[in-house]
Amino acid sequence: MAVYTHLGAEDLAELIAAYDVGELVSAKGIAEGVSNSNWLIETTRARYILTMYELRIDTAHLPFFLGLLDHLSAKGCPVPRTIHDCDGAAFRMIEDKAVALIEFLPGVSVDHPTPGQAKAVGSALAQLHHAVADFPMQGIQTMGLAEWDRLIHQCGSERLDTISPGLSDLAYEELSYLAMHWPGGLPHGVVHCDLFPDNVLMLGDRVSGLIDFYFSADDFFAYDLAVTHAAWCFSPGGHQFRPEISSALLAGYASGRALSDEERDQMPVLLRGACMRFLSSRAYDWVFTPTDALVVRKDPMDFARRLDFYRANGKELFA
Amino acid sequence: MAVYTHLGAEDLAELIAAYDVGELVSAKGIAEGVSNSNWLIETTRARYILTMYELRIDTAHLPFFLGLLDHLSAKGCPVPRTIHDCDGAAFRMIEDKAVALIEFLPGVSVDHPTPGQAKAVGSALAQLHHAVADFPMQGIQTMGLAEWDRLIHQCGSERLDTISPGLSDLAYEELSYLAMHWPGGLPHGVVHCDLFPDNVLMLGDRVSGLIDFYFSADDFFAYDLAVTHAAWCFSPGGHQFRPEISSALLAGYASGRALSDEERDQMPVLLRGACMRFLSSRAYDWVFTPTDALVVRKDPMDFARRLDFYRANGKELFA
Repeated sequence: MAVYTHLGAEDLAELIAAYDVGELVSAKGIAEGVSNSNWLIETTRARYILTMYELRIDTAHLPFFLGLLDHLSAKGCPVPRTIHDCDGAAFRMIEDKAVALIEFLPGVSVDHPTPGQAKAVGSALAQLHHAVADFPMQGIQTMGLAEWDRLIHQCGSERLDTISPGLSDLAYEELSYLAMHWPGGLPHGVVHCDLFPDNVLMLGDRVSGLIDFYFSADDFFAYDLAVTHAAWCFSPGGHQFRPEISSALLAGYASGRALSDEERDQMPVLLRGACMRFLSSRAYDWVFTPTDALVVRKDPMDFARRLDFYRANGKELFA
Repeated sequence: MAVYTHLGAEDLAELIAAYDVGELVSAKGIAEGVSNSNWLIETTRARYILTMYELRIDTAHLPFFLGLLDHLSAKGCPVPRTIHDCDGAAFRMIEDKAVALIEFLPGVSVDHPTPGQAKAVGSALAQLHHAVADFPMQGIQTMGLAEWDRLIHQCGSERLDTISPGLSDLAYEELSYLAMHWPGGLPHGVVHCDLFPDNVLMLGDRVSGLIDFYFSADDFFAYDLAVTHAAWCFSPGGHQFRPEISSALLAGYASGRALSDEERDQMPVLLRGACMRFLSSRAYDWVFTPTDALVVRKDPMDFARRLDFYRANGKELFA
């Protein structure tokens, strides 16, 4: 949540000159992104987001992420397109770091979605799932069940129970359940996998932008819906299920894409998996991130509570 | 260099509604400010900077800082004006924190100023020194000689010498010299006292914005010029004096305001004081800020090198 690299006016002007976007007017480092630095750039022509990839994402994966933005944007999804440089390249290098210039989209992220907003998000998600049908690139899911299992085992029972007594039992039990019940053969494609409210820009009830596709990978459409459901349908901390948001999100999704009977049957286990996805990565970060590090640790218990809810009520939701 | 407080779309929209500025279109937390959080806000009408004062600045001092922006802006200085809310207030409270909405100014900060840019900055500084003549509020200089002395003594010889061998001798010697030679009775007013390149927005050779007045206080105009000289006229790290930048900065200043003979005579000691100002606060932060803290520590030696230069060459510069 910081800008890790300093780029002065001279660096920025030199970079911008490689694109056909006018001249630099303003540049503000923005506090978004955990493993990349971002600037809101204004030129004489328009505004853009400049992203510098500092860590996690290998340059080798950028054609996938940036190509996905272009593909979805061309299909009419509210996704920022990549600005290509004068030679047609989707990204450039500044010293040893890749940078990409991306369309700026208006909108703000909501903290307490209304049903109208949840419906719009469901509908935008369905649109995304249609739009990826002919996206030609593959994105391997590296944050699937095997990885959840690895992260939880790296933490180990003792450390999990210092986060909260009983968390290790919950996590190990759930991993066994998911390993036995995880479905196969559902409709799939490249999906977002991280559509939290802060990755959705809204203007009133309208979705003006879907952003941060850096966890996108081939997976079940219904799993992406499950992640979105877990991300949107609870009060802060996951303490309270919000049934009106759930209904609106699912109605919005159904307005664009109908779940098959098989997908509907599998939603309860996919919802539990979505919780384990974030429980495991957050528990890992909680245990292995120094408390005074730059990155704010997110509470894994937010998703232990959601998991409890879906274990008790998931079947009923899709009865 | 971060956003310390989360403000969601709902919080921001509620705040914006208290001003006559149109409706919220976009909000991005920006990576500026050490003790405050800042957002670049776009409404249906214009763009603004929203600042939330997290620490250092007491609400009691805000009328001074915000009133100064309004005063300077009304005088035609390139300074962002404060946007007052519908009740005329210059700041509002969100829970226990003060927030102010400030005009957005275009421009970018340069790393390697050209003579043309240094000249423009000198000229803008002189304009500022004229414009404060009838500013009716007082701002006590809390970062003066007594504070440099306190900061250096808090560090102590041993810790200073771990930063760099010999630093404590340099600092203590210099503090004695300054205590004996610091002038009195020079022309004074509320001055910026922190006009580093990152506090100046430029469009080409034009100064489009002077920002971050949070160290402003009553002090000698010539001291403010000395701070600006020390901030602009060296290569990164203070390793190399840039005579062409110095000449241009001083010529730009002289084009707007002539130094009196007495001011000119005192410039060498004021330049040494400007170095001690930043040497002492940086040494203190170096010693007392944990190495893994959010704030990046700035190297005090950058100003020890400048001090060495001015000790050897300051008199010649103003001969």
